[in-house]
Formats: sequence, C-alpha cells, structure tokens
Amino acid sequence: MKKALVTGISGFAGSHLADYLLQTGQYDLSGTYLDENSLKNLNNPAKIRLQKLNLLDEDATEEFIRKEKPDILFHLAALTSPRNSFDSPKETFINNISAQINILESVKKNKTETRILVVSSAEVYGLVSSENLPIDEDAPFNPTNPYAVSKLAQDFLGLQYYLSDKLKIVRVRPFNHVGPRQSPRFVISAFAKQIAEIERGKGKIMKVGKLAARRDFTDVRDMVKAYTLALNMGELGDVYNLGRGRSYRISEILEMLKKMSSVKISVETEPALLKHSDDRELLCDFSRFEKLTGWKPEIPIEKTLQDTLDYWRNQV
Amino acid sequence: MKKALVTGISGFAGSHLADYLLQTGQYDLSGTYLDENSLKNLNNPAKIRLQKLNLLDEDATEEFIRKEKPDILFHLAALTSPRNSFDSPKETFINNISAQINILESVKKNKTETRILVVSSAEVYGLVSSENLPIDEDAPFNPTNPYAVSKLAQDFLGLQYYLSDKLKIVRVRPFNHVGPRQSPRFVISAFAKQIAEIERGKGKIMKVGKLAARRDFTDVRDMVKAYTLALNMGELGDVYNLGRGRSYRISEILEMLKKMSSVKISVETEPALLKHSDDRELLCDFSRFEKLTGWKPEIPIEKTLQDTLDYWRNQV
Repeated sequence: MKKALVTGISGFAGSHLADYLLQTGQYDLSGTYLDENSLKNLNNPAKIRLQKLNLLDEDATEEFIRKEKPDILFHLAALTSPRNSFDSPKETFINNISAQINILESVKKNKTETRILVVSSAEVYGLVSSENLPIDEDAPFNPTNPYAVSKLAQDFLGLQYYLSDKLKIVRVRPFNHVGPRQSPRFVISAFAKQIAEIERGKGKIMKVGKLAARRDFTDVRDMVKAYTLALNMGELGDVYNLGRGRSYRISEILEMLKKMSSVKISVETEPALLKHSDDRELLCDFSRFEKLTGWKPEIPIEKTLQDTLDYWRNQV
Repeated sequence: MKKALVTGISGFAGSHLADYLLQTGQYDLSGTYLDENSLKNLNNPAKIRLQKLNLLDEDATEEFIRKEKPDILFHLAALTSPRNSFDSPKETFINNISAQINILESVKKNKTETRILVVSSAEVYGLVSSENLPIDEDAPFNPTNPYAVSKLAQDFLGLQYYLSDKLKIVRVRPFNHVGPRQSPRFVISAFAKQIAEIERGKGKIMKVGKLAARRDFTDVRDMVKAYTLALNMGELGDVYNLGRGRSYRISEILEMLKKMSSVKISVETEPALLKHSDDRELLCDFSRFEKLTGWKPEIPIEKTLQDTLDYWRNQV
C-alpha cells in the first residue's frame, strides 16, 4: 500500500479524492483538515488518519510530514474563492503561498522522494482571447483576480522547487469542477442550493449574477481521478491542464437545473453578484494529459447537475 | 512639476533613480525608506520628502499615499537577493507581495490616476534554453529561486490590478544592473569590494563562486532612465524587458576588474558561494522597449566596473 497524504481532505475536492483513493484499495490514507464542521464531507473518516493541522504553522506541518513520510502528497488545501480574494488579497496570498512553502520545505527536510501534486488553476489564464481557445498549457497568463495570481505563484513555486531542489513535483491546472459538497460561493452549487430551498418553500426567486460567461465544467469525481493519475504518472516538473474540453454558458446550466425541478422558478439579477463577474469563455485543451494517461471525463454534465441538486435537497 | 514617489528610495536602484529624477528638474520627489543607514546613498536628501515607512504596515502606507497622491509611483522596495531567498522563502514572498498589495490597494482607494511602475525581474525567466536566447517578453518562465517566483507574483499582480481594477500599471523586467552602492551580496560588487580591501592591505585572496555563468549587465544609471521612460511612455498593462542585449561571462568581468587594480590578486573558490550558483546565460531582447522609447544602454561596461571599484575604494 502506498502512503498517500491529502491536505484539505475534508474540503470539496479533498473529500471526493479520499472517496476515490479508498475505493481503489491501494492507499494507506492520511489527511489534514482545519475545521471540524467540514468532516461531515467524509464518507469513511475511520479509514483515514485525520489530523487537524493549520498548514501556516511551520513546525506542526513539519512534524506531521516527518511522522507520515508519505509516498505521495496531494496538496489541495487553499483559499479557493476568486470572488472573496478581492476583499482579502493579502490573506489569500499569504495563506496559499505560506502553506505550500511549509509543505515543500518539510518534504525537502524529511523525504525528498515524496511525489507532490501542486494544484494550480485554470484561473491563471484569466482573460483569454478567442484565438487562444481551447487553452493549452502554453497560453499566456492574464489573471483577473488575486486568487488567480496566488495560484500562479503556487504553480511556479512548484516548478522552482523541482528545478532548484529536485523535489518530485507534478502540477495541474484544473478548470472548473463541480458536484456534491461544493460551497455555494460557486455558481452551480449556488443555483442548486437555491432551487432546493425554493422546493422546500423557502423563498420563490433565484438570485443570479451574469449568465453570459462560458466555463469548462468537469465533474469533481472525474477530476480527482485525474489528480491521482497526474501524481502517479505525470512527468516531474511538468504541468497539465485538466478539464472537459467543452464549455457551457452559465445560462445553459441554469436552464438544465431549472428543468430538473418540479417547481416553477423565477430568476432575478442580484447586483452584488454582478461585481467582478465577466463574460469570459474558458475552454480546456487537455490533450497533453490525455496523451500521457488516457484520461478523459466520463460523467455527463446532466448527472453532475442532478447529483448536485440532490445533494442540496438532502441538506436540512 | 510632476509628483513622483519612489519606494525604497535609499536603496541601490532607488538612490540612482532619485539622482536622475532630481537632475531632470521635472519632478517633485518623495520617497520611502526603511533603514536610516541607507540614507547615506542619497546625494540630495534635502530635496526629497523622505518618509521612514514599513510598507508591510497597511494603514501607514495608505496614509502616506493619501497624503502624497503622487502622479507617478516607482515601486522599487523589495527583498532583492535570490541567494538569501533560499533561506527565507516565506519572508521573501510575504514581504514582496504584501508591500505591493498595500501600495496597489492604497492607490485604488486614493488616486486611481497614479501611474505605477511594478518592478519584476529577468529572474522570472530563470533556466532559459539556448533556443530562447535572447530572451523576449514571451519566453517561458523557469524560475530557479524563491525570489524569482516572488517577482513573478509581483509582475502578474501588477497585470491583474490593471485588468480588474484599471490601475495604470506598467511592468518592467530588468536584467542584472550594476554600479556604485550595490550590495556586495551581488557578484560585481562583491568582486570590487574585495579588490578594494586587498588594495588597502586587508587580505590577499579574493573569494569567488562559479565563474562560467553569463549575465546581461547594464549600468544602474542607464536602468533608472529606462524606468522613468517606461513609467511615462509605457503601454498600460504591458511589460518590458530591460537590459543591454549583451552577456558577459563572470570570469570575463573578473579579469576586467583585476586589470583595473595595481595590486596582484589571487583568486580562490569559496565552497559556500558555489551553492545555488549556476552556468546559465541570460541575454536580454529589449527591442519592444527600444521601439517604444528609443532607449538603449549608453554607459560602457568598463566605466561601470571602474566606478564600482572606485566606490568601494572610497568606503572606509
């Protein structure tokens, strides 16, 4: 059994990754979390060595890595909201960078053979001109929020520790991923949660932001398989775009979700949601990764939306 | 008179920029510094509104920007040593990013018309393959030290505040610049300082690191003219490589400096200096900037080396 460590294991992607790693039966799993409330996301907490750990605490992080000495390490913990990062750019940076440096320095001191997945984001590409669509790994960076720049810094810190310290780092740039357990700060979860609430008789009108943007949505359960393949098979130092290779207009997603509900739903624009929103199209070219691993997304968008809606229907 | 503000005005580049701005007679100059000892670098302190200011202090930074409301702002203050950044990666990041965010947020709140120069570094290109020489602005990023990644983050934070907040930001990526007042943590200053010491009878043997690398060295006095042109004429949001367009082998520089001294100088390799050193060639393509402004470096390398050596000869 390989020793696998997941930071942020009780988060959205982390909890699905835990499900997947346990399901394969190939991993001895440990994970860090920050907030007890998030542990409800875990289906099999008893099968995971869970550690409450603030990754900003350098000594505690090193102690944990020294104790665990993982073979593979998925570094997922981060502040993940582009929108919130406008209000707290410094906090977003200091959190995302310091946590990653603490982890990389701990691995450097204790077990340099550990393979580490650094999770960047398609947000690094930001404002993409249409001639750069679909977006491959060489597209220029035009980040449009502080979160995106913090991910760009995590991304190139990963490359730098590979180049200068020979750490076994693989980087991924996931495009939007969605599914059950995602925070309602993100658009599809926000829609699904509101529909579930309206079905329960709580309010009648959905609040939405701009609907014209196009995003490349992948089911989180497909995404965590890609993370596992990337870490096990990726070229050290290399970076891989991960996504579906198809973009959906937000309005299209909204219509699909509305059709999944039996109740009549009215939609209203919420001015606060218009701030910092855009009309960009993000569309992923994941051919570099597909060529290496054969991976491609398998879960249809309809199932993702249905499962997300059902998730919110089951929340009290 | 334009109101110009220089952060880090008593530093190496900052003090030369102050000399230049005052010499043009076109600027009402203010500047921030952190350490009283560095004020000796300033030729005309009485002509500058000097403010001791820790740019990590958000409130004090905003108060200063609100009071000054500069027309143009050169943000030079930073931790600048690639070598030191290996020992303090988090400090390098938090310092360089937080200071810049405090400045950009202060400008955003108080005077969005301020034109701001964000100073990145050629170090963002890092490990450049020979087919990418000379290095233009589209060369890939392969940073090899934490300082380089902190500069990459400053660079793209500048672009991001331009894209999302319409701040009037111009970015530059200076290649190595050298001259009087540079810290002896940097190679040419380290050589010149040791030669001056040997001439004074202090020791006989120069300690050197690897001599095979090639770097593109520009006189700091040419560089600060380029900064001024970049800020006044640069396209908002754009980025410009600044350098000489010629690279010198470190061993070649060493030979030139040794010839400028009357004493016989022996050279010895210092193991500590070999750590984190490399054989890279950095060579600047500054045609984008030359086309826009007509700037090119004017001071020959021999004068730069002579002035640097004389600077150290005059330090007691």
